[in-house]
Amino acid sequence: MDVTKDNFEKALKEFEAAVTQSDFVAMDMEMTGLYETKELQPNRLDTLDERYAKLKRSVELYGVIQVGVCLFTWVEGCRQEGEEVAATDGGAGDTGGYWEARPFNFNVFPSSSIGGIAMDTHFGFKSSAFEFLARNAFDFNKWVYQGVPYLRTEDAERIRKERMAMLTSRQRKIDADDRHRDFVRDFELALDTFIDSGEQALRYETENSYQRKLIHNIVSSHDTLGTRGRGDCIEIFKGSRSTMAKHTAHKIKTLNQNIKNARGFCAVIDLLSAARKPVVGHNMLLDVLHAFSKFHRPLPVGREEFERALSQFLPVLIDTKFIIESMPGVKDRYGTSSLDEIAPMLEREDSSDLAPIRLHSLFTRNASRTMHEAGYDAYMTGASFIRLLKLDGGVGRAAEQSNELVLYSYINKLHLSIGEAKFWHIAT
Amino acid sequence: MDVTKDNFEKALKEFEAAVTQSDFVAMDMEMTGLYETKELQPNRLDTLDERYAKLKRSVELYGVIQVGVCLFTWVEGCRQEGEEVAATDGGAGDTGGYWEARPFNFNVFPSSSIGGIAMDTHFGFKSSAFEFLARNAFDFNKWVYQGVPYLRTEDAERIRKERMAMLTSRQRKIDADDRHRDFVRDFELALDTFIDSGEQALRYETENSYQRKLIHNIVSSHDTLGTRGRGDCIEIFKGSRSTMAKHTAHKIKTLNQNIKNARGFCAVIDLLSAARKPVVGHNMLLDVLHAFSKFHRPLPVGREEFERALSQFLPVLIDTKFIIESMPGVKDRYGTSSLDEIAPMLEREDSSDLAPIRLHSLFTRNASRTMHEAGYDAYMTGASFIRLLKLDGGVGRAAEQSNELVLYSYINKLHLSIGEAKFWHIAT
Repeated sequence: MDVTKDNFEKALKEFEAAVTQSDFVAMDMEMTGLYETKELQPNRLDTLDERYAKLKRSVELYGVIQVGVCLFTWVEGCRQEGEEVAATDGGAGDTGGYWEARPFNFNVFPSSSIGGIAMDTHFGFKSSAFEFLARNAFDFNKWVYQGVPYLRTEDAERIRKERMAMLTSRQRKIDADDRHRDFVRDFELALDTFIDSGEQALRYETENSYQRKLIHNIVSSHDTLGTRGRGDCIEIFKGSRSTMAKHTAHKIKTLNQNIKNARGFCAVIDLLSAARKPVVGHNMLLDVLHAFSKFHRPLPVGREEFERALSQFLPVLIDTKFIIESMPGVKDRYGTSSLDEIAPMLEREDSSDLAPIRLHSLFTRNASRTMHEAGYDAYMTGASFIRLLKLDGGVGRAAEQSNELVLYSYINKLHLSIGEAKFWHIAT
Repeated sequence: MDVTKDNFEKALKEFEAAVTQSDFVAMDMEMTGLYETKELQPNRLDTLDERYAKLKRSVELYGVIQVGVCLFTWVEGCRQEGEEVAATDGGAGDTGGYWEARPFNFNVFPSSSIGGIAMDTHFGFKSSAFEFLARNAFDFNKWVYQGVPYLRTEDAERIRKERMAMLTSRQRKIDADDRHRDFVRDFELALDTFIDSGEQALRYETENSYQRKLIHNIVSSHDTLGTRGRGDCIEIFKGSRSTMAKHTAHKIKTLNQNIKNARGFCAVIDLLSAARKPVVGHNMLLDVLHAFSKFHRPLPVGREEFERALSQFLPVLIDTKFIIESMPGVKDRYGTSSLDEIAPMLEREDSSDLAPIRLHSLFTRNASRTMHEAGYDAYMTGASFIRLLKLDGGVGRAAEQSNELVLYSYINKLHLSIGEAKFWHIAT
């Protein structure tokens, strides 16, 4: 399901309903760049703290433009005949259930204003990263024009508090700067004339948002006056105290709605975190740090604090690249641990009737088969995870006990190349 | 004329032929952002050196994605009846000649590799800048997929020298790092075996560009062996000294062609600089610094050195925003000095038969009328310049002497807001 701001609400509802039922979630992201210079690239001689610092720098410099999240749910019992099967197995005759996949491809773009509140975001990008995306048919117009916005909880709360204080305060808080003293004096004269007049409303022209802020604040100290934005003008109007209370309540409602809309994709990540499901990725360190930093909260300075916070955010992480690198014989057999290369090979070889993988019927229409579209990559990562575990003893729920033994050896070990170390074991 | 890499060669020829005949050139750019934080924004209290430092920082942080260049040429004599006239004047009966405009809209995107040489570019972008472009129907896919590359003269020369040294040297220059000692030993063994064998060619697999560089360098010390890139392999082949000399000459030719192609849009700016024409912009300081930094050479650290270099690069600059702000009564009459607002008003009021403005016939097809498309903004800037000078005494060549007096008061004074200063007078 390709998700833009046009169908985000529907997708969010679908995601919310499905995530709690899912058994695990696969994730993948497309970014605007990786490392600014050669010196900032990961290096086998890094300590774990140095590596964290390099990854943090990458994540804070570059943007996320597409997030693939694929929910995998084990469905017990017979598969109906004639239904589409994503794996290449025959599909007839098995009774052991199947894996149902729901791949979401979220296009995300940070909005620069939330109900009139400026929230400009600065990102870096590398020409090579954009060229890589172009080679994979990425639609840059869809990203900018239709991307789902996002706003982290703590930023949303900060904005809400600031605006609530302005909406409910009856005190003048802002001292106009020197350049605006004349503006304030002129406005106060006009306001006094308006109050003494029989007029019910006054339109006052402003040149910028700072002037509008000044006016809102001056008027807020009068409990029988209200303000309404009117483009470059502000309208000041008279009313009883109860009218003004209703007017303020309406503004608060609008504010809350604006902030809810602005949170956008962060609501998906909140649901994912709350669901406590295993999250599977391929070479997922950067994806995990981006998910934390862009959609949850700022990255801590220190690595140990990050690990503690991560275990609260996404408690179970599984990296298919680590599995491939550490499962006996697998890398030798396929000659690669790159997802592009190994995922199609695993798909072709997956002829067993045990635990086939199929797309949920809502997700078959327009299903992408483009590698490096984040939704498809997330699907292929989750599917490869299932197929890798089949190599290592099967992953149907029937064999749950042995699966758990298999799985435990892969939990929270993220692929890494530092000296001889093959993974970063996240402390929990 | 909308220019992408698909029609760049044709556009460059057209530009080259027309620029020397033109009387002045108008310029405008679209960028990926302006200022990273509020503190880095221009401020009325800046000194000129501080302002230069802020502008330099902006230019070095953000990218240019579209450059509009519009050539204006005075054509003597009668206009033919029935031809299209861009200005709203009647167009009948005048005999005093007209201004012919050739607007080019160059979409530019920095290539990350030049004939196999990595040249990755890092830029910042602001979400607000991309949203601004989206509101003006900017095509981000055209930018990334079809943008004309660019490479400054000094970068091109550095790359050429490095590659020429590698192509013509017969000395081993590169000491393999520790990780590649085994690779070099294995390759040398294979090479010795190949030399002693009757084989004419050897294909050798490599994992990365560093390994390929090592092989090219090792083989270069043999004057009867040559190398050819073959994807991830390298082919080493035998031949006489004269065959190898021809092979090297061919490689040099290819290198020069690759570098010429990579220079791309910089060739347009070279022609513009060499033509010594007045360059007109609107609030043009950032455009001038971007033109210098992206397409000419890196910005000097100090403002005075920049001014000296600028007077060599583009000796005559004219800022229509400065003209509007300083021409008696003009800003009061129109109530604005913003190009979006004033350019259409000047166009509507330009009913005089004196010096009408028309598009050259090659440039009428698909001519954009979209404000904030750089080519159209450049056209509107140049047209506004002509119309402003008409207000100030006419700008037909017939009245050249008085025009020069009018013009001189505007040359190299760029609009600026610092305290009471209205412009930055570039020293020449």
